[in-house]
Amino acid sequence: MNKLFIIKIGGNILDDEKKLTVFLEQFAAIDHKKILVHGGGRLASKLAEQLKIPQQVVEGRRITDRETLKIVTMVYAGYINKNIVAKLQAVHCNAMGFCGADGDLIPAHKRQDAIIDYGFVGDVDAINTDLINSLLEKGITPVFAPITHDQRGQLLNTNADSIAQELAKALSITFDTTLIYSFEKNGVLSEINNENSVVPAITPSLYKEMKAGEKISAGMIPKLDNAFAALENGVKKVIIGKAEQLSDLIKGRAGTSIQHE
Amino acid sequence: MNKLFIIKIGGNILDDEKKLTVFLEQFAAIDHKKILVHGGGRLASKLAEQLKIPQQVVEGRRITDRETLKIVTMVYAGYINKNIVAKLQAVHCNAMGFCGADGDLIPAHKRQDAIIDYGFVGDVDAINTDLINSLLEKGITPVFAPITHDQRGQLLNTNADSIAQELAKALSITFDTTLIYSFEKNGVLSEINNENSVVPAITPSLYKEMKAGEKISAGMIPKLDNAFAALENGVKKVIIGKAEQLSDLIKGRAGTSIQHE
Repeated sequence: MNKLFIIKIGGNILDDEKKLTVFLEQFAAIDHKKILVHGGGRLASKLAEQLKIPQQVVEGRRITDRETLKIVTMVYAGYINKNIVAKLQAVHCNAMGFCGADGDLIPAHKRQDAIIDYGFVGDVDAINTDLINSLLEKGITPVFAPITHDQRGQLLNTNADSIAQELAKALSITFDTTLIYSFEKNGVLSEINNENSVVPAITPSLYKEMKAGEKISAGMIPKLDNAFAALENGVKKVIIGKAEQLSDLIKGRAGTSIQHE
Repeated sequence: MNKLFIIKIGGNILDDEKKLTVFLEQFAAIDHKKILVHGGGRLASKLAEQLKIPQQVVEGRRITDRETLKIVTMVYAGYINKNIVAKLQAVHCNAMGFCGADGDLIPAHKRQDAIIDYGFVGDVDAINTDLINSLLEKGITPVFAPITHDQRGQLLNTNADSIAQELAKALSITFDTTLIYSFEKNGVLSEINNENSVVPAITPSLYKEMKAGEKISAGMIPKLDNAFAALENGVKKVIIGKAEQLSDLIKGRAGTSIQHE
C-alpha cells in the first residue's frame, strides 16, 4: 500500500504569514501523496465584524446564518484556499484547491438538530474517493476548504477536523494513511498551560483516565474523539502537534501520537 | 475533432439569482465538453464600498491594490465560483471550480506598464492544456474564476474575457472549439441603445466600417478585438449574445456571430 498523508492545518497559524510559510515548505517537502485540509483562522470573524454582521455562538459553536455562510465561503474557499495553493505552487507542490462541491468531492447534508438550529452547517455524507484517487495519481495535491454542499445547490459550512477525518477514513481503503492534526500547540498537553508537558502517546485507556481527571482542555476533546474515530476506521496513524514542526511530527520526534492500546 | 464550448459569463447577470439559474440550466444542458469562465459582477465593488476600500479607476480600468486583490479573490474565486459550482452540481453538471493557480492551470505575469501601475493584474502566459484535457476526459466541467498566479506565490486579478480567449486558443489544437461571450445584451448592436438592432454577423471589414462610423460602444471594442484574435488563432466559432439565450446562441438563432470575411 502506498503512503498517504492527510494534514489538517488550523488555528492562528493561518493568520501568521511567516509561520504559514514555514509549515507549507515542510508540507511541500513530504515525498508522498498528500492532502491538505485547512480551517478558517480569525479572518472570517474579523470580516464579519468589519461588515457588522453579528456572530451568534451557541454552546461554543458558531451559528452559520446566510450572511455568515457568504463570509466563510469568501474567506475559506476564496482567500485562504487560493493563497495556500499559490504558495504551494511557488515551492513546486502541484496543489489544487477545492471545496466539497467541486467535482462533488464531499456531499453533505444540512445538520438537523432538535434543540439548536446551526443554520447552514453540513455533516459529511461521503467522500468521492474515485476522483480524489485519480487526482493523486496525476501528482495533484488537493487542498480542501471546509465548505461542502448538499447536492441541491446549497453550500454548507463544515468542520475542518471532520473533513480531515472523513477523508482519512475513506482513503485508508486504498492507502496506508497517516492523519495529522496540526495547530499552534505542541501536542496534547498534560498541564493545559504548559507547552512542555506534551503527552507523547495516548491510548483509549489513558484518554479515559485523562478525561476523568479533567486533564484535557475542552477544545481538545472533539479533536481527540475525531482522532480515535479515525484510528478505529482503518487510519494507520494519527498525530496531533505544532504546525511548524510538521517534519518532526511525521518522523515521530514531536507531538502526540494517538494509538491503539 | 470533438466539440468544445467555452462560455464566458459576465455582467450584471451574476448579480441576478434568477437569470443566473436560467443560464446555468442551459449551460448544463450542453451535451458536449464545456468550460465556464465567469467575471465578477457588482459584488466586488459593493464589498469594497462596505469595507471602505477606495477603488481607483484609471482610463476605465480598475487598479488592483493589495486590499482590492484580497476582495476579488474572496468574491470571484470564493463566493461566485463556489456558488456556481454548487448550482451546476444541482443540475447534474459535474463542475469543478478553479483559479489559475490551481494545478498551475493558468500561469501569468504581473502587468508591466510604463505609464499606469495596474497593481496586482496578470496577463496570461500559458494554459496547462494537459491537465484541462484530462479533467474534460473525466467528464469534469471546469469553472474558472478570473484570478491567475505568477508561479511565485502571487495571485493576480485577470480579465475574464482574456482568460476565455486564451483557453479557446490553446484548446482549439485538440477540439473543434466554439467561444461564446455571454452577457446582459442581445449581441453587438448597430444602434447602441436599441436592443433590437443586433448585428447577426460581423466580419473584419464590417468591424472596421462600424468602428470608423463610431457605431460600436466603447465597452464592446475589447470584446470584439478578443473575439477576432480567437478566430485568427484556430477557434472555430465566436458568438456574442445574451446569457439567458445561451441555447439559441449555440443554435445560431440569436446573438452576433464573429466570422471570417
